[in-house]
Amino acid sequence: MDIVTRLSKVVKDCPDFPRKGILFKDIMPIFNDPDLVRDTCQSLVDQIIHSGERPDVIIGIEARGFLIGPIMAQQLKIPFVPIRKKGKLPRECYSVKYEKEYGFDEFDIQIDALKEGDKVVLVDDLLATGGTLEAAKKLCDKSKAEVLSHCVVFELEFLKGRDRLRDTSVISLVKYGG
Amino acid sequence: MDIVTRLSKVVKDCPDFPRKGILFKDIMPIFNDPDLVRDTCQSLVDQIIHSGERPDVIIGIEARGFLIGPIMAQQLKIPFVPIRKKGKLPRECYSVKYEKEYGFDEFDIQIDALKEGDKVVLVDDLLATGGTLEAAKKLCDKSKAEVLSHCVVFELEFLKGRDRLRDTSVISLVKYGG
Repeated sequence: MDIVTRLSKVVKDCPDFPRKGILFKDIMPIFNDPDLVRDTCQSLVDQIIHSGERPDVIIGIEARGFLIGPIMAQQLKIPFVPIRKKGKLPRECYSVKYEKEYGFDEFDIQIDALKEGDKVVLVDDLLATGGTLEAAKKLCDKSKAEVLSHCVVFELEFLKGRDRLRDTSVISLVKYGG
Repeated sequence: MDIVTRLSKVVKDCPDFPRKGILFKDIMPIFNDPDLVRDTCQSLVDQIIHSGERPDVIIGIEARGFLIGPIMAQQLKIPFVPIRKKGKLPRECYSVKYEKEYGFDEFDIQIDALKEGDKVVLVDDLLATGGTLEAAKKLCDKSKAEVLSHCVVFELEFLKGRDRLRDTSVISLVKYGG
């Protein structure tokens, strides 16, 4: 069975979570199956490699990007760097404010986390409107790193997040709507 | 170089973060070195196995437990289950309120995440006062799972968190104070 079918079978739709009108994709059942976790991460890694450029760093976005980003970094044998919610990272940080699907938020990255010219891949579980990944890319811009691609397991195509991220390629495994 | 020395060399002390009087251990530099990430997780896994019982599930506590728990679950080839901050997990959850080193918080676990009798290991980056892990264990108790051990990379021994968790064994790699 291919990875898209395997993922589609276990992900649970949760309408009106965390608030009315939002369709939440519950990815947690993926983690019940260690082979599926490994193959999901490896499929994303394979697509990154297939795109031609090798990243220097995998960046995971709090919190669900932390569940897959570090495994992908292990598979690629490269460093992992976190982007966290405001105030969670110690020491000096770059910050960016942004609007997301349900409300506002602010992200931090440590100023010494990336080196100028680092080629990075941004990892999250899901691409919705693209606001989160767009903000994450701004933190990479402040760090003078080059974002090779945005990398997600699920993409809600009907929200057109890919249009918002049009300067950078998007890798996704399971696409909903269109 | 042994794992304790390697970890001690990269972790950064951050006094008075996130508020005055708290000594924060910044574990993020570990993730610059993929071999160190792998060996840290494998050292914890080796100690779990050495303790005699095989866990059925690794449980990671949001957010830094998400950085190491899924890798440990991969190494053990077993499922990973998250404990998240209140309101972050969709579908029906068990909840528990608790006091932590700096303020109050509330944790959730999905009610179908664990099966009755599952043997689980709770994973976080650091053991301080033990409030977080104690709360996580209460969620496992509600789920009728058996906690084999609490498993952390760093232990602030001078805060005596181990005393608070005395019903369950504690595995830690780097111990500070005493």
